[in-house]
Amino acid sequence: MPQDKIILGIDPGTTVTGYGMIHLKGKKMELLNFGIIQLNKLPSHPDKLKRIYDRLQGIIVEYKPDEMAIEAPFFGKNVQSMLKLGRAQGVAIAAALHHNIPFEEYTPRRIKQSITGSGAASKEQVASMLQKMLKFEEQPKYLDATDGLAVAVCHHYSSGVGEHNKSKSSDWKSFVKNNPGRSK
Amino acid sequence: MPQDKIILGIDPGTTVTGYGMIHLKGKKMELLNFGIIQLNKLPSHPDKLKRIYDRLQGIIVEYKPDEMAIEAPFFGKNVQSMLKLGRAQGVAIAAALHHNIPFEEYTPRRIKQSITGSGAASKEQVASMLQKMLKFEEQPKYLDATDGLAVAVCHHYSSGVGEHNKSKSSDWKSFVKNNPGRSK
Repeated sequence: MPQDKIILGIDPGTTVTGYGMIHLKGKKMELLNFGIIQLNKLPSHPDKLKRIYDRLQGIIVEYKPDEMAIEAPFFGKNVQSMLKLGRAQGVAIAAALHHNIPFEEYTPRRIKQSITGSGAASKEQVASMLQKMLKFEEQPKYLDATDGLAVAVCHHYSSGVGEHNKSKSSDWKSFVKNNPGRSK
Repeated sequence: MPQDKIILGIDPGTTVTGYGMIHLKGKKMELLNFGIIQLNKLPSHPDKLKRIYDRLQGIIVEYKPDEMAIEAPFFGKNVQSMLKLGRAQGVAIAAALHHNIPFEEYTPRRIKQSITGSGAASKEQVASMLQKMLKFEEQPKYLDATDGLAVAVCHHYSSGVGEHNKSKSSDWKSFVKNNPGRSK
């Protein structure tokens, strides 16, 4: 199935939010951009949410991604930090919703697995594998940027089959497998 | 200080999100609208977030509130539910951010306190106090609607001094008090 689309990957956080974009041209995957939204110097939690929202809006308007994916751990240290993380995720999701961009979410383990083959890989291993795949020269200063990029690549490899519609989609996949010629 | 403004109060939740609006005309406070966004029949968490975002966008475009306030508990049962609640809050906050509406947050206890005088008041007590204050005929079927309204009224009584800039604002208040004529 040939495709030409842009995927935006986001690793939301309230200290640093990482993002990365890939451009798929047929079977070729190209690096479009990656970077971070630095939040640790902003005085309040609302300021951080605003910065995440504004920057993502800017990125979406500039690059017009077709699909978005976020890294979403399903458990964490404590309820307080999960509430803050949930807000950061909610703001990022709203930026996608505002532009009617479909979004998907993936666990950190799943993302590492899809890039390196191991769900227990380190950030450095993920970054260096991405560097080989996408042929960029230097590693970014903050690995949150490659984390964002990793989400986008994971989404591409998973063909949009993320955590919240995994079962639906695997049904679809087995349907397609069992019914060749009936898929579009 | 005379004022003419609209305050939108939101009680975000992933089963039901309640909202309420008041119109302040000088010293008079009038009920503008209140209601709920029902989410429990939607199949997935992303669908719920999308519904919250779309409905709040619609409400904001229609009523053009000047300020927004949300009810925000700071702790909860477990990390999983806090992550979901955080996302609902994040999406609601993003709707405000998108329209450059300043927002503030208040704990449930603070809201009950400001309406009924007791931080331990029941939802029914809050609803019946609001009914007296704002003179509406019938109690809504879902108390989430009066909960949303309560946030708006609490915000008005608190003059925007919510949880996250309590200290800053009291400094400002004491500055104004100590420097009459220097405030705008």
